[in-house]
Formats: sequence, structure tokens, C-alpha cells
Amino acid sequence: LHVFSCNSNPRLAREIADHIGVPLGDAVVGRFSDGEIHVRLDESVRGSDVYVIQSTCHPVNQNLMELLVMVDALKRASARTINVVVPYYGYARQDRKTRARDPITAKLVANLIETAGADRLITMDLHATQIQGFFDIPVDHLLGVPILGEYFRKKGLDDVVVVSPDHGGVIRARKLAERLESPIAIIDKRRPEPNVAEVMNIVGHVKGKRCIIIDDIIDTAGTITLAANALLDYGAKEVYACCTHPVFSGPAIERIRDSSIKEMVATNTIPLPEEKQLDKIHTLSVASLIGEAI
Amino acid sequence: LHVFSCNSNPRLAREIADHIGVPLGDAVVGRFSDGEIHVRLDESVRGSDVYVIQSTCHPVNQNLMELLVMVDALKRASARTINVVVPYYGYARQDRKTRARDPITAKLVANLIETAGADRLITMDLHATQIQGFFDIPVDHLLGVPILGEYFRKKGLDDVVVVSPDHGGVIRARKLAERLESPIAIIDKRRPEPNVAEVMNIVGHVKGKRCIIIDDIIDTAGTITLAANALLDYGAKEVYACCTHPVFSGPAIERIRDSSIKEMVATNTIPLPEEKQLDKIHTLSVASLIGEAI
Ligand SMILES: Nc1ncnc2c1ncn2[C@@H]1O[C@H](COP(=O)(O)O)[C@@H](O)[C@H]1O
Ligand SMILES: Nc1ncnc2c1ncn2[C@@H]1O[C@H](COP(=O)(O)O)[C@@H](O)[C@H]1O
Repeated sequence: LHVFSCNSNPRLAREIADHIGVPLGDAVVGRFSDGEIHVRLDESVRGSDVYVIQSTCHPVNQNLMELLVMVDALKRASARTINVVVPYYGYARQDRKTRARDPITAKLVANLIETAGADRLITMDLHATQIQGFFDIPVDHLLGVPILGEYFRKKGLDDVVVVSPDHGGVIRARKLAERLESPIAIIDKRRPEPNVAEVMNIVGHVKGKRCIIIDDIIDTAGTITLAANALLDYGAKEVYACCTHPVFSGPAIERIRDSSIKEMVATNTIPLPEEKQLDKIHTLSVASLIGEAI
Repeated sequence: LHVFSCNSNPRLAREIADHIGVPLGDAVVGRFSDGEIHVRLDESVRGSDVYVIQSTCHPVNQNLMELLVMVDALKRASARTINVVVPYYGYARQDRKTRARDPITAKLVANLIETAGADRLITMDLHATQIQGFFDIPVDHLLGVPILGEYFRKKGLDDVVVVSPDHGGVIRARKLAERLESPIAIIDKRRPEPNVAEVMNIVGHVKGKRCIIIDDIIDTAGTITLAANALLDYGAKEVYACCTHPVFSGPAIERIRDSSIKEMVATNTIPLPEEKQLDKIHTLSVASLIGEAI
């Protein structure tokens, strides 16, 4: 069994390798002067089961291509099976046509990964579980809820209500609520008229409660910080937020810093560079979860 | 017939569209906040023959992915045929295993383009013509030599010798020499002993001659500038250099500027940004050549 890392998330890769007790595979994933990726495998993989760890987070096209070139190299080096571990699956939000003539890039990426030669995918919290069906190879779909739930359970908060920031996230919120033995609430965004700001209504009771908003991806953090304000307006005592995938692009970090969110909890499927770290952001590792799946 | 452009070379795309007398297709190839590409086609392509212009030059992974997402969108929008025009085909130098366990990324890219849904490829001066065989779809392979030859012929230089910078480029040099009715010379690099600098011997007569070095790709310009010096050492009167694909990465521009090369001629398969333009670099357009092939 060999575990290789590309460049998106080397720290998580090392943690995973440590968890299963193997050294990280000896390989270089570098660049030529013109920016083309070059991969060099420095150990034989002939006949063995290989795992490649790579999140397709920012820079997504770079990271995706590193993964594809690595899989190509492993295939040509006669690996027995090539198992790609993509803790964060980029392009997952382009999973359907929202208008005529849209691409479906999440499906394109699935085809690219299969074409390169992957035999199996291990991933976490796909934005839409339908993406599993975009693959003809087996997909192991892991969830962040147990890790997030464990963290909040240990924290021992009382008067908790788990909040879904939209109707699409209710099942996820329900799963977290079960682990915390708490009720749920749902934020119901509505635009009363065209070109009028959205209104956030809340379905459920939050008055005097500690709210934990849960989402799969937090990207620019616009929705989540507005949701936190709405919850406080409705009388919530404190607001926590959590997610599996901290994309945190654009104004996200400033928004989280300046928001009324008391603590933001996320996993390390996407690494947070130094300049994106805040005291109120707490990171949980998915290494043992993924290690168990390998 | 529709012609769309992605973002690598919009000026060439416009020139091609002008040449064939159609407006550029109405589409947006943009980015979300996290860097993911989004493509929006703003006109119907149902049942029509579509051409997409995109060089996979720097940033190569970005540009390749733009092309793939565009092809995916066109396919799902029921285009009749999708013809991808890739004036510069990135990753072409990774066309074979030079060591055990190398990827063959030029073949991977071919597979990715076919998987996305392309029906035909139009490209120029592939680093290895074998790459045509990496595709199962038709490939139109255009050559820069006629354009470069026309330019030098009009210049009316006398005492010309065409120089190939290595043994792999002799056929290309021969083709240019035929157009200029001139002899050829070949630079024969040899490393006399391991860890000793290469020596450039010259096969052919260059003394008192005007040399035109021709290559397919000029990347960091190391070889070409050293070759120019060697030619002058052997008594050449002047040295010109030309290529189809001006990759010009890393120290290339400084090297060309400071070199003994009198003029550098290249085509616009790869656009030269403002900061890479020098008085001694002359650019020729491939728009009509590609326009004719469409
Ligand atoms: N990387 C991205 N950043 C922001 N929005 C995106 C991104 N990818 C897709 N989308 C859009 O997000 C919407 C899908 O989100 P959702 O409705 O939550 O599934 C669609 O309208 C997409 O066009
Ligand atoms: N983008 C690149 N930049 C520099 N060298 C490359 C690049 N891609 C491939 N190579 C190397 O260039 C060599 C192939 O060049 P050639 O021998 O001229 O076909 C191989 O050793 C490759 O590893």
C-alpha cells in the first residue's frame, strides 16, 4: 500500500499516512519554468494499491491537473489500483444546469478523473450527493457531521438549536441535531419582490438559544454571517457556525472576523494558509476518518 | 458556423473570426470568487458547427480547463460538431517516458480533450508529430514554416544559412531552407565528459553567413542564445532566430534582449504580454492560416 500526496494539502496527507502507519510515497510534483506540471515517482508502485491525496481547492485547475498527471504516472507505472482521495471536491456546485447552455462541470471533472485512470474515489460531503452517480467507479462518500458533532458534544453547550442556512441543508442539520440531541431551525430566505433585498425568516425556535449553523461549504461567508445576524435579531443567545469545507474566498475572512459569529468550526479538507487564520476559527482533522476508509 | 474564444488569446480569436467573416460567439468565460471557471453561452449553438479558439499556454492548467468546460457547455447545448483550435498545444514536450515512471501528459491532455467532447482538433507545430496519434479524432496539423519563410523571403537577406539548434529540428530547418533556397547547418551539442559543460559544434558552413536559427518552441531561450554565440564564434555575420511558439518563460526576455540575436521572429500562437515585448521581437499572425483551415 502506497500513499502519495500532491501539493494541495500535504499536511493532511502526512496525517493520513501517519494514521495508517506508512511513510508518504517518494515523489516530486513540481513545475517547469513555464508552469507545466511535472510528476516524478521515485519509488516503484508496480502491482500495489496506491492512494493519492489531493483536494481540488484553490487553485482548483492547478490542483486538479496535478491529480490527473499523478494518476497518469501511477497507471503507466503499473499500480494495481489507483484510489484518489479528494477530501474537497472542487466544482461540486456546478452539478446541474441552472440555465440553458450551462456546463455541468462536476460531471466533467468526474469524467476527467476516470479518464486519467482512477479506480475508486474517496471524498467528503459532496455538495450534491448525486455527484456519486457521475462516476462509474466506486465512490466512498464520507461525512463531516460526526467530527463536527463530536466537537460540539464535548464542548457541552446547553440550549442548543442546530440551524440550516437553507432548505437544501436540512438533512445535514438534522444529522448534527441528532448527535447533539437538540431541535433544528431553518432559515427561509425570500425575496418579497424582484430587486428587493432578501428577507431571512426563521422556521423554528431560536429565542434564548445557542445556535449552531451548519453548512457543507462556506465560501464568501455572506450567507452565514447574515444568517448569524438574523438569528440574533430573533433573540438567539449565541451563534456558532460550522462546515466541512472552509473555502473562505474573497471577503470571507474579514466577514467572519467582523461578524457576530462566536466561533467558526471547520475541518481541514481545505488547508487554511497563515493569513486566513483567526482566533475564532477552529480546525478539526479528518485524517483518522479518511485513514479508516483506506 | 460559430467561433468562440476562451481567455488565452482573444486577439488571435478575433483576427480568425474577422478572417472568416463571422462575429465572435457571445459567451462569458469567467471565474467565481474561489477561482472556479464558469462558462455561459449567450447564444444558441444547437445543430451548428462550432470552433473554439484556445491556446494552452501559460497559465496552462487554467487555459486547458477553460477549454474543457467550454466544450462541455457546447456539447450539452447540442452543437453539431465541436472543433477545438489549439494554436499552441501545452504539455507537448511530455510526449514520452524519458525515465521509468514518467507520466505522458501530452497523451493525458489528448484524452481529456476527447472526453470533454471535442470532435476535431486544429493545432500548430506539435513538438512531436506523434501527438497526432494520441487522438482518435481528426487532427489538422498546421505548420509555421510557410509564414516564417515568407517573412524572411520578403526581407531579401543574402548569404543565408538556416540552422537547426539540435538534431530533432533538422526536418523543420530543411523546410525553411527550401523556401529560402539556402543551405542548412546543425548545432551538435555534446558533453565531452559527465559534469563538463556542453560543447556546441557546428555541422555545416556558417562563416561569413547570415544564420537563421529555427525551433518549434522557444521557452527559456537558453539554447537559442548560446547557439547564437556559437555561430558568431564560428564566424557567422549575423544571427536571426525564429519559432512558431514563443513560450518565453523565466529568464527568456532578458536573455533575448542581452543576446547577440539580431532579430527574433515568432508567431502569435502565444500572445506576448506588454512586459515581454522588445523591439527586436517581431510577431507574425497565424490568423489567416487558421482561418483557411476552418
Ligand atoms: N465556485 C462557485 N462559486 C460561487 N457560486 C458557484 C460556484 N460554482 C457554482 N456556483 C453557483 O452556485 C449555484 C449552485 O449552488 P446551490 O444552489 O447551493 O447548489 C449555481 O447557481 C451555480 O452557478
Ligand atoms: N514544460 C517544460 N519545460 C521544460 N522542459 C520540459 C517541459 N515539458 C517537458 N520537458 C522536458 O523536456 C524534454 C523533452 O524535450 P525534447 O527532448 O526536446 O523533446 C523532456 O526531458 C521533458 O522532461
